Amino acid sequence: MKKYSLDSRKVEQATNEWLQKRGVERSDIAELVMYLQQGYYSDLTLEECLASVDKVLAKREVQNAVLTGIQLDLLADQGQLFSPLQDMIENDEGLYGCDEVLALSIVNVYGSIGFTNFGYLDKVKPGIIGKLNEKGGPMIHTFLDDIVGAIAASAASSIAHNKQKVAEERNSQGTASADESK
Amino acid sequence: MKKYSLDSRKVEQATNEWLQKRGVERSDIAELVMYLQQGYYSDLTLEECLASVDKVLAKREVQNAVLTGIQLDLLADQGQLFSPLQDMIENDEGLYGCDEVLALSIVNVYGSIGFTNFGYLDKVKPGIIGKLNEKGGPMIHTFLDDIVGAIAASAASSIAHNKQKVAEERNSQGTASADESK
Amino acid sequence: MKKYSLDSRKVEQATNEWLQKRGVERSDIAELVMYLQQGYYSDLTLEECLASVDKVLAKREVQNAVLTGIQLDLLADQGQLFSPLQDMIENDEGLYGCDEVLALSIVNVYGSIGFTNFGYLDKVKPGIIGKLNEKGGPMIHTFLDDIVGAIAASAASSIAHNKQKVAEERNSQGTASADESK
Amino acid sequence: MKKYSLDSRKVEQATNEWLQKRGVERSDIAELVMYLQQGYYSDLTLEECLASVDKVLAKREVQNAVLTGIQLDLLADQGQLFSPLQDMIENDEGLYGCDEVLALSIVNVYGSIGFTNFGYLDKVKPGIIGKLNEKGGPMIHTFLDDIVGAIAASAASSIAHNKQKVAEERNSQGTASADESK
Repeated sequence: MKKYSLDSRKVEQATNEWLQKRGVERSDIAELVMYLQQGYYSDLTLEECLASVDKVLAKREVQNAVLTGIQLDLLADQGQLFSPLQDMIENDEGLYGCDEVLALSIVNVYGSIGFTNFGYLDKVKPGIIGKLNEKGGPMIHTFLDDIVGAIAASAASSIAHNKQKVAEERNSQGTASADESK
Repeated sequence: MKKYSLDSRKVEQATNEWLQKRGVERSDIAELVMYLQQGYYSDLTLEECLASVDKVLAKREVQNAVLTGIQLDLLADQGQLFSPLQDMIENDEGLYGCDEVLALSIVNVYGSIGFTNFGYLDKVKPGIIGKLNEKGGPMIHTFLDDIVGAIAASAASSIAHNKQKVAEERNSQGTASADESK
Repeated sequence: MKKYSLDSRKVEQATNEWLQKRGVERSDIAELVMYLQQGYYSDLTLEECLASVDKVLAKREVQNAVLTGIQLDLLADQGQLFSPLQDMIENDEGLYGCDEVLALSIVNVYGSIGFTNFGYLDKVKPGIIGKLNEKGGPMIHTFLDDIVGAIAASAASSIAHNKQKVAEERNSQGTASADESK
Repeated sequence: MKKYSLDSRKVEQATNEWLQKRGVERSDIAELVMYLQQGYYSDLTLEECLASVDKVLAKREVQNAVLTGIQLDLLADQGQLFSPLQDMIENDEGLYGCDEVLALSIVNVYGSIGFTNFGYLDKVKPGIIGKLNEKGGPMIHTFLDDIVGAIAASAASSIAHNKQKVAEERNSQGTASADESK
């Protein structure tokens, strides 16, 4: 019997592949980050947003939530969940909140300042979130739309922390030793 | 020496009094609930919203968060917090998230379906939340605006649960024994 | 095409049936509650503990988490999850925390005072939790052991609230109007 | 009027100073980490534990929670909170859970695998947590004991992530590109 041994690279790779297979590009998420943050930082670039998304997606906690959520969506697609869970997830039932619960575990990793952006994205449904929410397509995205919003909200938090760090370093003309790496 | 003995009525009373002293009426919160839910339930009345707010405010967990948050706002008004906490709360500093943390403990009591509404209110700032956020007044509301949003989001969740129960009872023509009391 | 219509009774029924099918009786959970609380309330009975467990299990938020967790355990039993999620859940991998995340959504419903008991049960693994954790059986319980601990911790919180209410009513010789229904 | 400008170094400095003033050395927290993790990693050193504690304490989210919690303890010492919050915090009242709520926001930063350790420490109260919990001293530590437990639990999570990374790099004889920086 082979002993189990985790391979973190496989977990990261699977996360990226499954996001793509389910129709989500990293650039789609970066655009959500831009949508959230451009009002605050006029010089923000899509490259910065993309780098921030990548940083969030490199966390194991985030990868676990992404894989678990997509797995449940996929099984719902195939009608393989037991009743009444199949119905609740298939119909994105209003009183079913495990999708929000998993998503919040992503937001938590970059701290509480992301809660607001997560809720806002989930309500307004811009960009890729709107597309994932369109009913009638072949895929069920009950978990994925919340997960994508959570990744974007986390990346936005990460940018807020970085911008603060840069501003402080500028203020102190290079004398600051701010080394808060988030 | 007198032994400590909790009096729950005092906790509830203090919660209601402090909300009023800080400029928040229960009807203000009920209006936020109406704002959130009227698109979903055309027959929703302000009385139902108010009853739902009252139910949320009757929970000890919620009372604890309200009192703790208002206490911190009040001490910030009076300049009695130590540095740099005084500055962070006085200025509703973007990287300070303990206000969201306390608020989320309120939302959690009625379950994850409230996260979205909480984030949305915090971003859009309708009604009383907008008023609390106006800078320049004599009072600091760094905690209270999030707390009010959290109470409204919880009350909205509670209404969603109740409406479902009523709909099911109607469907089963009174034969259902749905007794989920939330 | 039939319109989706939630039936709450079916959700509750499925929750109870699946707990049993996976080897967990309500009395097993009641014994965990007794284990947690008997040091604080010498007059606590197993009936009270059982009633408290029933109250927790009547909440939709809790039912959703139970069903979702058991579904993932069940699919892991059958080897039907995609790689590497299958391996992580099958081996109750140390860096995989979605089981704790789902469980915490149960604890949250009865408030933060349950966190401690949840963590303690998960570490000490008394009674049914220990049995669920025994490796080598035919069933995988990566999610279920945390869920059972969360239900017990929530029921313990509920008892703490009730005992306080009773104590206050006794103190006020029946004149109190404490109506905090949790 | 002077414009507010955050200085992150001041926030970090204040965090470290206040922990010391309230009787908590970083080495005390490192010993809790050792207590939690030595059963899993026989080669774990106190230096590693200390480095892990330092990393946790460098996070803004953590600093915010530490300062807010200590501020409330301090005001309770001085009797400056309003009633009944003063009584609840002074007596570490069983139904008051805002201390756990703040502490959990620390644990969340290193992900859900820390919940268990947090709960366990809070129940068993080893080392410095036991000392902080001794009643009768001049200082109230209602918030601080939970916060110290949360920092230790987070540092333990961080070690678990690091040890996994090291193990994988060894397995792949240096060919792995595991760069998960947590």
